Amino acid sequence: MNAIQRLVTPRSVAVIGASADPAKTAGRPVSYLRKHGFRGAIYPVNPKVDSIDGLRCYPDIASLPEVPDVGIVLLGAERAHLAVRELAARGAGAAIVLASGYTETGAEGARRQAELIEAAGSMRLLGPNTIGLVNLTDNIPLSASGALEMDRFPAGSIGVVSQSGGILGALLSRAAARGIGLSKLISTSNEVDLDLADFIDYLADDEATCVIALYVESVRNPETFRRAALKAMRAGKPIVAFKIGRSESGARAAVSHTGALAGADRMYDALFEQVGVIRAQNFSDLLDMPAALAAGRKLRGKRIAILTSTGGAGTLVSDSLGMAGFETPAPDEDTAAKLRALQKGDHAALDRNPIDVTLAGLQPDLLRGAIRILLDSPGYDAVSVIVGSSGLAMPDLMANAIRDCLPDSDKPVIAFVSPHAPEVASLLNRRGVPAFTAPEACTVALDAMWRAGRTATQAEEGTPVLPLPDLGMVGAVGTGSLDEAAAKALFAGFGIPVAKEVIVANGEQALAAARAFGGNVVLKVLSAEITHKSDVGGVAVNVSPEEVAGRLATMAAAVRSATGIAPERYLVQEMVKGGVEVILGMHRDELGTAILLGMGGVAAELFSDTTLRLLPPGQGLTRQAAFEMIQRLKTAPLLQGYRGRPVADIDALVDAIVAFSRMVATLGDKLVEAEINPVFVLPQGQGVVAVDGVAVLADGGRQQ
Amino acid sequence: MNAIQRLVTPRSVAVIGASADPAKTAGRPVSYLRKHGFRGAIYPVNPKVDSIDGLRCYPDIASLPEVPDVGIVLLGAERAHLAVRELAARGAGAAIVLASGYTETGAEGARRQAELIEAAGSMRLLGPNTIGLVNLTDNIPLSASGALEMDRFPAGSIGVVSQSGGILGALLSRAAARGIGLSKLISTSNEVDLDLADFIDYLADDEATCVIALYVESVRNPETFRRAALKAMRAGKPIVAFKIGRSESGARAAVSHTGALAGADRMYDALFEQVGVIRAQNFSDLLDMPAALAAGRKLRGKRIAILTSTGGAGTLVSDSLGMAGFETPAPDEDTAAKLRALQKGDHAALDRNPIDVTLAGLQPDLLRGAIRILLDSPGYDAVSVIVGSSGLAMPDLMANAIRDCLPDSDKPVIAFVSPHAPEVASLLNRRGVPAFTAPEACTVALDAMWRAGRTATQAEEGTPVLPLPDLGMVGAVGTGSLDEAAAKALFAGFGIPVAKEVIVANGEQALAAARAFGGNVVLKVLSAEITHKSDVGGVAVNVSPEEVAGRLATMAAAVRSATGIAPERYLVQEMVKGGVEVILGMHRDELGTAILLGMGGVAAELFSDTTLRLLPPGQGLTRQAAFEMIQRLKTAPLLQGYRGRPVADIDALVDAIVAFSRMVATLGDKLVEAEINPVFVLPQGQGVVAVDGVAVLADGGRQQ
Repeated sequence: MNAIQRLVTPRSVAVIGASADPAKTAGRPVSYLRKHGFRGAIYPVNPKVDSIDGLRCYPDIASLPEVPDVGIVLLGAERAHLAVRELAARGAGAAIVLASGYTETGAEGARRQAELIEAAGSMRLLGPNTIGLVNLTDNIPLSASGALEMDRFPAGSIGVVSQSGGILGALLSRAAARGIGLSKLISTSNEVDLDLADFIDYLADDEATCVIALYVESVRNPETFRRAALKAMRAGKPIVAFKIGRSESGARAAVSHTGALAGADRMYDALFEQVGVIRAQNFSDLLDMPAALAAGRKLRGKRIAILTSTGGAGTLVSDSLGMAGFETPAPDEDTAAKLRALQKGDHAALDRNPIDVTLAGLQPDLLRGAIRILLDSPGYDAVSVIVGSSGLAMPDLMANAIRDCLPDSDKPVIAFVSPHAPEVASLLNRRGVPAFTAPEACTVALDAMWRAGRTATQAEEGTPVLPLPDLGMVGAVGTGSLDEAAAKALFAGFGIPVAKEVIVANGEQALAAARAFGGNVVLKVLSAEITHKSDVGGVAVNVSPEEVAGRLATMAAAVRSATGIAPERYLVQEMVKGGVEVILGMHRDELGTAILLGMGGVAAELFSDTTLRLLPPGQGLTRQAAFEMIQRLKTAPLLQGYRGRPVADIDALVDAIVAFSRMVATLGDKLVEAEINPVFVLPQGQGVVAVDGVAVLADGGRQQ
Repeated sequence: MNAIQRLVTPRSVAVIGASADPAKTAGRPVSYLRKHGFRGAIYPVNPKVDSIDGLRCYPDIASLPEVPDVGIVLLGAERAHLAVRELAARGAGAAIVLASGYTETGAEGARRQAELIEAAGSMRLLGPNTIGLVNLTDNIPLSASGALEMDRFPAGSIGVVSQSGGILGALLSRAAARGIGLSKLISTSNEVDLDLADFIDYLADDEATCVIALYVESVRNPETFRRAALKAMRAGKPIVAFKIGRSESGARAAVSHTGALAGADRMYDALFEQVGVIRAQNFSDLLDMPAALAAGRKLRGKRIAILTSTGGAGTLVSDSLGMAGFETPAPDEDTAAKLRALQKGDHAALDRNPIDVTLAGLQPDLLRGAIRILLDSPGYDAVSVIVGSSGLAMPDLMANAIRDCLPDSDKPVIAFVSPHAPEVASLLNRRGVPAFTAPEACTVALDAMWRAGRTATQAEEGTPVLPLPDLGMVGAVGTGSLDEAAAKALFAGFGIPVAKEVIVANGEQALAAARAFGGNVVLKVLSAEITHKSDVGGVAVNVSPEEVAGRLATMAAAVRSATGIAPERYLVQEMVKGGVEVILGMHRDELGTAILLGMGGVAAELFSDTTLRLLPPGQGLTRQAAFEMIQRLKTAPLLQGYRGRPVADIDALVDAIVAFSRMVATLGDKLVEAEINPVFVLPQGQGVVAVDGVAVLADGGRQQ
């Protein structure tokens, strides 16, 4: 038994600072352990009390008759570390520290937290600032959550890890009220030691758990998270995550355009998707999705039969499903004939969907027959049963009739309970029929089932980093913000095609360069100090060789007047025409480094049509990953021959994305920022051309 | 007392087809009337029974001792009309017909429905296929809904009209469970007589009602709906509508591009918005929004204080609010100082928002003090109180403490109940504090309050129709699908600037025309039969006068090969450059006629960046309305000088939208279809130019 197993399934629990008053927070853990039937040893520790509710109370940890598997530390932040040190000294498996007042409160708290970590030594620690954990499988509540006042909680197969203690209580009480069974509930909070990933890893092995639900504030260690998530996926245990902090995504400032587009919350989207974690959008989804997945049934297609005895509610579910891309086709001939044979009378609407079997709610046999026919129909992938007011009078018959049909098929069966009828919903859930009270939840549930069948189970492949190319000019330019020519030389060094260009210092050189290109050109001021060239009059497009010297003079004056900088160098660049503009960039934060692909052009920019993909650690993207990024753009059709336009060279774009990503992986922290904007994607066979870009290299001398 | 008042507040009720078995549907109305304490006369009518539950039962309507105000007809569709005829003959105020089996089931049902209408004569009719109505204000249930099995329902100020009977029961039971008080609940269903608009009109006058909630399947009479909605708004009664049928919006086929973009569901968006109806997106919003509005408090800004004793739940609410554009600023100096003075101890986080008043949930005085300080703070427009597990033990104290603060301020106070605690939520609602169990519902509630303060209360002004202009060529061309030149002549006749162009028949004429324009031109094939000119090689742009004859010959061959039509006429058109492309169209369906404005360009098209505005009946749009349409485009910044582009001539676009709308209003049903695509909006001061378009006129001879 490793330390986490010992923590979750202890045979003995010491409760340090236990109060004899069960109404106080410090009185709850002992009270709940007894209330919910913990069968191991309970050792309250409190020098001021002799016994608590008949249990002998010990004056200190040293006097305990055995080494406890777990110590629940209820002391305040000023003294908690003392208890932790004693528990560690006696060889306890783990300590749970409930006190708040650590890093979340400032510098003094941070000092206390360091003290706590030092005190624990090699003993595992849950918290601090945690409400503890509840092992529902084995009836072991190691928590002070007021939600444990409830008399019974239904054990089941959903393991929950929450980074918030308060949310643990909310989920526990909400699940219990709905008849949704949980296996383990763990609140990790400050995560000075045990974290989200540790418990995902544990739950992936836990026999009682078949679905994992996460309440996430921040993933502190993306690498262990990634490994644990993939382990769970391979074990066939889908993970659902609700992540808060979504509306603060805009708060991160970044110099480059790319940085502004790629908010941190979108990095979580990328991380979750790349390791197969299903993201919950609404808080209620965090129970609804796992409840649906816990049924363990397979959704093979998107055609849903809605069986109802009350028209309005069936339409509600149908409408919601339709908006999410599910289909609700009418029964095929054969299925309709079987339904007709089942039902007498003439008003029932059996030729449409929702399938309105009048009074089915009052006749369990009819309901049972209809569900079996629909599950049997090759035209449906799942059945959604509507429970109307008529079902309220006999919840048991309803729930049993639906449950009876489950063994005949492995297609999903879910229920929507239209009136307020918590006992019916609870009964259905307990009988293995995921039941929901919001029509939108039916859609969310089916969507989770659909996605769970299609998630990643393997670590993403990558392409290896490259030997550092000879960066020529870049090497000479050194570090910091590169000018446009140096940035493009860097990109070209990693295999990205860039526009042909010549650096010039005056009109004469510009004329010569333009003549050499043999057509109209682009003239740009060249300076690492000027980041927004267009805004200061530093870009002229479609300039004829005859005009170029004059334009250079005008540009010099304009730039000087706008910036105070007298430009010394200019770029004369070939005109690139006829392509689709895209943006290629990077974004790096706590979660890792991501490549950003965005559609260019003002309209696409207004809609922020961009997509992010995290790099596999230390590697570049594969061609497959690059191709998927392109597909995910809403404006991808612009590359695919939309409305008579030429089909763009998607192969070359894929190559450029891979090359850019390998550059980012190869340079690692040396590369602070990089963006190519725009890349012109030319018609098929003609490649791509990077026309403008920025790159910022770390100042090696000053960095650590 | 008018007929609707007599229906909703009857002094006597006949129940035709009443059963003595209260478990049967036909037994319920009498049983519910007695159970819920109806104080008027109840007359069961059933020839087979002498008495029902001690009430004398009458063999037929003729034998009733008085004329009943209302007759509830429980007979099947085959016989219901007989009872209706007798009720009408005796002078009853209204009949409620529960039977199904009418138009919703096909031709035979439609025949029965006609029979029913004829039988009612001038007597008002609710239904058929209705579950009836419930007057909660006066304890008068005229319904067979199983939801009435409940012992008590809380009366309140939300009036509900539902076009589905099943939904009535769902809303009644859900509201009762949550302590949300309703005034009247009416299910209108087939609406052969009394409809949505009739009851909105009634509720606008009803003293007990201050908010109206609608469950809408389809608005059968947009004009009466519009009038009734505006009457309610003027009476200060906000309307919330949940409308289903959203995912079928794509089902309507339409020839023109405009038709495809403008789904019927978007017409409802336009209708609701133009008359101030707040649209609910999720089913739960249909109770959450009215519950919030029923508190009758004013939200003057978007700065929300979140008061919590449990960190996680506060963050949930804050995150959801942030995503919807609400702000949750930290308390200002003064407010923070007051909060600190209130609270002893050192760990509470009072300088941020959520404002974490540790243990406030257990100390009503502290809670009361903190709420008062926050309501008093000029930095907040509303307070959201989080109820955590600590509040569960003493729901009354919590609810009372919050309620006590209400009289001190007219700012909204709402509550989020984090654990499962229905009794707490119910108590809060009953004490006047809208309480929610989903963090997203808090946002929806505040958003409804925000919108309710900013809704329309007056019928929209319009611009009058025009005398039919001299349509010249159009008149000659006559009816049906016009060719491009005729369509633009029509648009020009109503004052929309169109591109200069000349109709030519051959290369020689084309050359002369191009020379006359004095620059490069556009050459297009001209035929009413060819609708997608570009697809068949029928458009050439930027053609020099020298090339135009040759291009005409190539075009003739290409078009003939693609369509089998040998073109006889062509358009030589001035080249229009340097503008922003928009689309101007119309959409007409059961709800009325709307003008569609869309951004052109492929990216905007991929995002369907369009907006719809319904015409005021028989009139065109005002300049203000046209201006608002432009503002609503997501890509409106493209017209406003985005990224160094020239500012577009928005004034001229406004004029063009108004002119187009007056054309649509003037021509009425004569105009089957019209679209200008594109309109070039040139830089400020240079106007707009319609470059291409289609118009289809009704064939007067063949139309009725």
